[in-house]
Amino acid sequence: MAHHSASFSFTLRVRLDDRPGTFADLARSIADAGGLLGAIDLVHAGPGMKTRDVNVLATDDAHAKAIVGACRQIDGVEIEHVSDRTFQLHLGGKIEMSSKAAIETRDDLAMAYTPGVARVCEAIAQDPAEVWNLTIKRNTVAVVTDGSAVLGLGDIGPAAALPVMEGKAQLFKRFGGVDAWPICLDTKDTERIIATVEAIAPGFGGINLEDIAAPRCFEVEERLRASLDIPVFHDDQHGTAVVVLAAFLNALRVVGKRVEDVKVVVTGIGAAGVAVTETLQAAGVSHIIGADSSGTVYRGRPALTAVKQRYAEQTNPDNFVGSADEALAGADVFVGLSLPGAVSATGIRTMAADAIVFAMANPTPEVSPAEIADFAAVVATGRSDYPNQINNVLAFPGIFRGALDVRARQITEHMEVAAGHAIAATVREDELAADYIVPSVFNPAVATAVATAVAAAADEDGVARRTIDIDAEVAHLAQ
Amino acid sequence: MAHHSASFSFTLRVRLDDRPGTFADLARSIADAGGLLGAIDLVHAGPGMKTRDVNVLATDDAHAKAIVGACRQIDGVEIEHVSDRTFQLHLGGKIEMSSKAAIETRDDLAMAYTPGVARVCEAIAQDPAEVWNLTIKRNTVAVVTDGSAVLGLGDIGPAAALPVMEGKAQLFKRFGGVDAWPICLDTKDTERIIATVEAIAPGFGGINLEDIAAPRCFEVEERLRASLDIPVFHDDQHGTAVVVLAAFLNALRVVGKRVEDVKVVVTGIGAAGVAVTETLQAAGVSHIIGADSSGTVYRGRPALTAVKQRYAEQTNPDNFVGSADEALAGADVFVGLSLPGAVSATGIRTMAADAIVFAMANPTPEVSPAEIADFAAVVATGRSDYPNQINNVLAFPGIFRGALDVRARQITEHMEVAAGHAIAATVREDELAADYIVPSVFNPAVATAVATAVAAAADEDGVARRTIDIDAEVAHLAQ
Repeated sequence: MAHHSASFSFTLRVRLDDRPGTFADLARSIADAGGLLGAIDLVHAGPGMKTRDVNVLATDDAHAKAIVGACRQIDGVEIEHVSDRTFQLHLGGKIEMSSKAAIETRDDLAMAYTPGVARVCEAIAQDPAEVWNLTIKRNTVAVVTDGSAVLGLGDIGPAAALPVMEGKAQLFKRFGGVDAWPICLDTKDTERIIATVEAIAPGFGGINLEDIAAPRCFEVEERLRASLDIPVFHDDQHGTAVVVLAAFLNALRVVGKRVEDVKVVVTGIGAAGVAVTETLQAAGVSHIIGADSSGTVYRGRPALTAVKQRYAEQTNPDNFVGSADEALAGADVFVGLSLPGAVSATGIRTMAADAIVFAMANPTPEVSPAEIADFAAVVATGRSDYPNQINNVLAFPGIFRGALDVRARQITEHMEVAAGHAIAATVREDELAADYIVPSVFNPAVATAVATAVAAAADEDGVARRTIDIDAEVAHLAQ
Repeated sequence: MAHHSASFSFTLRVRLDDRPGTFADLARSIADAGGLLGAIDLVHAGPGMKTRDVNVLATDDAHAKAIVGACRQIDGVEIEHVSDRTFQLHLGGKIEMSSKAAIETRDDLAMAYTPGVARVCEAIAQDPAEVWNLTIKRNTVAVVTDGSAVLGLGDIGPAAALPVMEGKAQLFKRFGGVDAWPICLDTKDTERIIATVEAIAPGFGGINLEDIAAPRCFEVEERLRASLDIPVFHDDQHGTAVVVLAAFLNALRVVGKRVEDVKVVVTGIGAAGVAVTETLQAAGVSHIIGADSSGTVYRGRPALTAVKQRYAEQTNPDNFVGSADEALAGADVFVGLSLPGAVSATGIRTMAADAIVFAMANPTPEVSPAEIADFAAVVATGRSDYPNQINNVLAFPGIFRGALDVRARQITEHMEVAAGHAIAATVREDELAADYIVPSVFNPAVATAVATAVAAAADEDGVARRTIDIDAEVAHLAQ
């Protein structure tokens, strides 16, 4: 079903003859072309004419063009200008740097800059831990990418990836109160990525790796976690894993199954698939089978990469050999992090009763939710136009909020599992339903709950530099 | 003379018995201890007592402590808390990341992030020049340091340097409307600095190098200028040079001498000294003699570094050999970028009539302005408590504003000289005086004038990616 989206919306600036029916003709043409009418503003009223801005939602680029074409045919309506709302929003970038205090007088200058700032520098030079009190490090995260695996677009390079990183920074601030800044790297060399992030680390309280292709992302993250004393977190791996865990826990609540009893099949053994598997295991799942385009990953399979070799050793307890569809027989949960068609509706129908299906390929799920609606008990996707959207925004802002609040040295598996449980717990028992297993991204309780759980887990794991009065610290997140 | 500074100000929270005279006693004690009273706020009034916050300016740390000690002796006055205003200002850092547009609805998310952002990324992938339209690159500068030559503090490292870089970012925004973000490098290795800046360049429209020690700073800047297609500018070199040029031009206007006629002596042949010399030469000065702690730099002097060897070849036309003081005989202008005592008042008195003295060592000038007040026609320093402060804030915000506005590939010597002339020209003929050769840092005309001149020069030099309607573009800077 075609889906009208603000991401394909545009503003028509139209000059309408001032007689009854011109706007009705315009509205009818937009409707006949399948466009959805949004906000309408009067720009100018002159003798015998009116100029209006009309927002229209389309389903894709071609649809938008068709709607505009239809509107151009109307008598008495002249289209002066068409502007793409998404591009308008991006003009000049989406974020900026702001001062927390105004600099209006010589006294302001003397405190924020020379000579006053020298005493602050000296205090940090004498006690390096003071950098956490007296600078932005306390609240700042670098969003680092090499632009090699951006959304569904692939290797588009660092400059073209920048709009995503800016958006990520917006989400960090909006949902976690975290100051993030994009760092787009002009290299895809593992050693150079590592050396660069190590070099820029002093000014940041955490590193969010983003959209770095597998298998490079594994080594980059592992090496940086070892060398840096601040959290390093590849969101495509661990952010996804945390939200899948939350959805998984609540889906099991819906169908009344226990974590330790279920069989899970994962398709796509890339960055996200590996991390999801590890996090589900850390949460208590023992029976996981992974599959890629060549079928299940098993011990003894020829030509396995190092990552998949390790995966084979840690999963697939019965060493099942077969296709992804064959692996689904009797499974309780399917987690798709791969491509449309990775499994079939027929395969899904061989799963155990009360099947849980997470088909997260974007924008087209592994299997059509409509085709399995009569069979699966719970279905989730990565899309906002279906129920149960698995969206990383539920995880990363709260995870970094909690990690920064306790000045964590790293983000442990335990902290990730705690985050997953915290997200799941924000859906109350009386709200929980097959089509409501994850909270809304705009639920203000989520980031607070995640931050609290992550901070507590960091403390338990001994990676917190300080303990905090968590209730007081995260109170400002509640809105 | 001791100078009361906001940078040594503190807030006393005092509990005063509610009877006539307690506040008078407090104010008298502060005055007797030499403290200057600032703002006074009533915090709380209770039975028989009042709590007030009293701001006090001191001249240095020891003085502040002495004032507090004196206040503790007063009957009926209890000091509850003393807080350092400069440190208070720095708590948690001075800058933050802000979104330009709110994210409050799913439509907002769909345009700023997935799925809408994908079309913007694709547009940049197809036409790389679009990164200048559709991202923050258009207005963003990295403030990069290795923390090796911070203010007068020296090599305090990247973390302790962060407060200065945050302050710099504030000044970039306040005076130039530029979004700057601190990048503090955990390396002092020339190759690693260069490789790191090259790697992070795609997300920035310019690189402001800051507080990097000589001679490393020369190679870092030169190599980055060659390899990057965005402006690279070491402010300690070129920002200083531009403001010195502006002060120099106006000082010559005051005394009625011509650029091409004057003899200039520079002490301190480090980052700033070399750049100032080159910029003065580019502006038409032919007779410059440089001196370091070993005396004048001349062709044939033993054991010259590569930088000073080149300096010797390009300066000192008569190949004068002697001390800095000896070089001053008959000179028209002295430019000190060195240390207190680098020249003597006796040496200054051997200069030509209408001597111009820029003694910019901080916080103590090369020679005391008071000692030469009866001789020199114009005196400037780096301090805000004397007339004619040579302050880089006059240059870098406007220089980057202009460079970003035309998407300059680099900042040329011509652009720097143009900036110097533009700063000088903001002091009108009827304002110009021996104690007013540079405008106030808060003069809003400065950045606009500098940006306009720099953009025009970039266009002339063929380093502008676009020409602009400069009047319209910089109009928003005027306040």
